[in-house]
Amino acid sequence: MTVCRVMIIGGGFGGLETAKALAREPVDVTLIDRQNHHCFQPLLYQVATATLSPADVAWPIRGILSRQANARVLIANVEAVDTEQRLVRTDGGDYAYDQLVVATGATHAYFGNEEWARHAPGLKRIEDATEIRRRVLSAFERAELADDAAHRDALTTFIVVGGGPTGVEMAGAMADMAREALSNDFRNVDPARARVLLVEAGPRVLAAFPEALSAYTHDALARRGVEVLTDTTVTDIGHDTVSIGEKKIPAGAVVWAAGVAASSAGNWLGADCDRAGRVKVLPDLAVPGRPDIFVIGDTAAVADETGTPVPGIAPAAKQMGRYVASVIKARLAHEPAPAAFRYRHHGDLATIDRGAAVVKLSRLTLKGFPAWAFWGIAHIYFLIGMRNRIAVAFSWLWDYVTFGRRARLITQPAMLGPDAMGTSPFRPPSPTCGPRAQASNHPAV
Amino acid sequence: MTVCRVMIIGGGFGGLETAKALAREPVDVTLIDRQNHHCFQPLLYQVATATLSPADVAWPIRGILSRQANARVLIANVEAVDTEQRLVRTDGGDYAYDQLVVATGATHAYFGNEEWARHAPGLKRIEDATEIRRRVLSAFERAELADDAAHRDALTTFIVVGGGPTGVEMAGAMADMAREALSNDFRNVDPARARVLLVEAGPRVLAAFPEALSAYTHDALARRGVEVLTDTTVTDIGHDTVSIGEKKIPAGAVVWAAGVAASSAGNWLGADCDRAGRVKVLPDLAVPGRPDIFVIGDTAAVADETGTPVPGIAPAAKQMGRYVASVIKARLAHEPAPAAFRYRHHGDLATIDRGAAVVKLSRLTLKGFPAWAFWGIAHIYFLIGMRNRIAVAFSWLWDYVTFGRRARLITQPAMLGPDAMGTSPFRPPSPTCGPRAQASNHPAV
Repeated sequence: MTVCRVMIIGGGFGGLETAKALAREPVDVTLIDRQNHHCFQPLLYQVATATLSPADVAWPIRGILSRQANARVLIANVEAVDTEQRLVRTDGGDYAYDQLVVATGATHAYFGNEEWARHAPGLKRIEDATEIRRRVLSAFERAELADDAAHRDALTTFIVVGGGPTGVEMAGAMADMAREALSNDFRNVDPARARVLLVEAGPRVLAAFPEALSAYTHDALARRGVEVLTDTTVTDIGHDTVSIGEKKIPAGAVVWAAGVAASSAGNWLGADCDRAGRVKVLPDLAVPGRPDIFVIGDTAAVADETGTPVPGIAPAAKQMGRYVASVIKARLAHEPAPAAFRYRHHGDLATIDRGAAVVKLSRLTLKGFPAWAFWGIAHIYFLIGMRNRIAVAFSWLWDYVTFGRRARLITQPAMLGPDAMGTSPFRPPSPTCGPRAQASNHPAV
Repeated sequence: MTVCRVMIIGGGFGGLETAKALAREPVDVTLIDRQNHHCFQPLLYQVATATLSPADVAWPIRGILSRQANARVLIANVEAVDTEQRLVRTDGGDYAYDQLVVATGATHAYFGNEEWARHAPGLKRIEDATEIRRRVLSAFERAELADDAAHRDALTTFIVVGGGPTGVEMAGAMADMAREALSNDFRNVDPARARVLLVEAGPRVLAAFPEALSAYTHDALARRGVEVLTDTTVTDIGHDTVSIGEKKIPAGAVVWAAGVAASSAGNWLGADCDRAGRVKVLPDLAVPGRPDIFVIGDTAAVADETGTPVPGIAPAAKQMGRYVASVIKARLAHEPAPAAFRYRHHGDLATIDRGAAVVKLSRLTLKGFPAWAFWGIAHIYFLIGMRNRIAVAFSWLWDYVTFGRRARLITQPAMLGPDAMGTSPFRPPSPTCGPRAQASNHPAV
């Protein structure tokens, strides 16, 4: 018997859900990803702010699918899709498919200012999170070495661009880290003097939430010392500076949370895309003219019944994954195709800080501690694997009680080879630390 | 009142112990390190083999000393020591000292074959461990994509060079990882067929232990599938191969555990060093002719009362740190100098695998499960911070029960900037994965 080969590109929420929903079907599932791990992006900001370790929010894709006998996992880089011959071309070989599910997610968008990327990383991958962690912690270290107060203040200014949930969470967590976790660590720097700026181009933060919750979030962030600048457009981002109009603000680290664009999957497929690069799909999430190719998650442009675009969040990707699996199942069984995909919005969550969050469910609105407790339970619940749940719950409980942050590691790309043996793995990213001599008026013992 | 400035270079076991032993003394302690974290090197192999996360075995130096009011921490790269002017020159400025303690540890030694370093990383820093983890896991991924069985077998051959405790622990943990944790993960590769070779130039593994324990370790490793090659000299290490005499053994990853050399601190001081680069110190651990400069830990050449060199292990470094603090204390109090440093050897420990270890204390010899339990308790005890103890104990218990390894992450240096946006963070380090087309004889659904 010949078996239908379902190829899934991408091991995010959508791709994994598709694979799992096909576990009992007579198909051969192949999931391709360029990373060996699924990343739980909603908690990535906690890796960037040193609360969680990478392994707390990432799980090997092989481990997730190891018991699913009809699934295999390939770690390779997709280079092209041959839609005529039904081949996915990767740097590890070509693979034939009968049904293709493209779930390659989104990446940061800099709206034509791609040169900002090096100065203001976004937060999509584990490597982004450890890089932001390195930059923020290194900025404090450089400040501790700095001579003059102005330079110290510049290095301990952190700017988050974009007031959506990721930006709010980053800003709140950075303010908390500076005020609590680092409070006794430095001798020249007072981390409580660190400035955190949250810059939002629109009139309010958390634009997707009701106005009352935006206002609450704005106030809650301000109470925690975050300077929230709404109706404020970033005009340039350079090395260690963010420009707002004519004003240049020096900063120790900048985080980009202002926008995403779909991955380049649309190019592979030669499909029609919207302005954000998302593939315009049919009501059954297939590509027009290619019923054997589905696009789901952040890569797909889908609207709900009111015409509103489906948001790029994990529950939407999972719903699309389950839906596409049901379409494939129906085809296998020669049954009529299911009704068009219909997105069900369960709600919006964003956390601000320890003990404060906002939650908007269909009828329910929460803020403050109840919202934070709800947010925490929901995120623990959605983590993959009991062990990650226990590890994250333990980390949060510990940090909540001790105000500590254990994962304050500045790690660097490994520098192997003889050149690296005698050199420092710590290189301040800026040449701004000039040499200085301390006053030497202390006699010897 | 002028205060004696004690400068400590290095936040390893020796440097930290010196700083802590001076907590109640009327001195200004400055600890300089190029990394912001203390690394618990004895457990680094468990990061390399995906049992523990970096944050489980590393602790921010600032956190360790944050409550010690007379201590400050500087993260900077030492470039030179001006012994005349008593200045430590760093890339973050110059710092004057009255008493200097050099505790810069050791690095890998390749015995004149420095070009092997890139092919066979050692295990000294967090970055080394995550790099080895990346190589081992990537080799399995490349094997899963490989076409022919010989290539697959080559990629799943792992060679550990050096049969001391680190080599034994790496080999045992790698065999365990292949047999247990990865057992269901692959479809083309059978991880149980993975070969782990432990190559030792001397006549037996664990040469510092009694012969009976070496023999037990040899057998225990062999029972677990590790091929132990004693009296075997590596003649060359190339990209993906290790040469033993004329024989070239292809390998998926190679780990260097065959030797260490002292850091280059001897050059800074212009001091007399032994062949391994360790500074020859006086009985009070001071540099000859420089009573204000002490060298401790792996950087110092010290012999015990029998003339045997003091081993480069954590307890020795800590004893030297405490001793130097006592010398400084005596000088401050204008008391007679303490008697010469005397090393007390408490014992040797090495773990082989889950449930097996060897322990040699002065009178006591343990092997198998009792030794393993002793080893585990001792290492938990010596970890810094209650939280790391709980986290590591939990990880071990979980892995022991489930045979899992949660930290199986292949992470890469962050590639920021526009170039990185569209490219894969996963690049197989070898170009050996040629393209292949799968047989395409399955019809569509």
